[in-house]
Amino acid sequence: MSNQQLDQLRNDLDEVNVELLNLISKRGDLVKQIGQVKEQQGMNRFDPVRERAMLDRILENNEGPFENSTVVQLFKEIFKASLELQEDDHRKALLV
Amino acid sequence: MSNQQLDQLRNDLDEVNVELLNLISKRGDLVKQIGQVKEQQGMNRFDPVRERAMLDRILENNEGPFENSTVVQLFKEIFKASLELQEDDHRKALLV
Repeated sequence: MSNQQLDQLRNDLDEVNVELLNLISKRGDLVKQIGQVKEQQGMNRFDPVRERAMLDRILENNEGPFENSTVVQLFKEIFKASLELQEDDHRKALLV
Repeated sequence: MSNQQLDQLRNDLDEVNVELLNLISKRGDLVKQIGQVKEQQGMNRFDPVRERAMLDRILENNEGPFENSTVVQLFKEIFKASLELQEDDHRKALLV
């Protein structure tokens, strides 16, 4: 395989990176909205049962190349970052 | 906002999760292909300059809601998992 093909693969990777960022950001916006609803209803923001259900649904769809354990680890990082967004909103709400 | 709207947001979130998994998996496949090319050409698999360039390109596109530092942290986890895929392939190649 030539350097030209390597360049092409790298261009594809750069595109996928930006698509991933867009999707992670969209997910962040959704989680913020969910946090606002929960805040209004006086519900806890962190729900381990719901988190487990989300992970199960994700793993049902996993066809590789990543092992389930790696997928869980990556999504837990994404969940954690999203939860922090909700907490930032909560702190800001308290300051108003 | 009603429970119905909360359910709708959660459905949207489940869909985004699966889209994210598909994109992370597509990224994993691309990185495996890149690893195979580099293996054939005797190149190092880990390239910190290329990793930095990928991160810079990602951050140029970041319009929130996540801070740049969070985006970097999430992508470094994704990069690490992808590099492990290449290493698995490399070990398998050595065993053939």
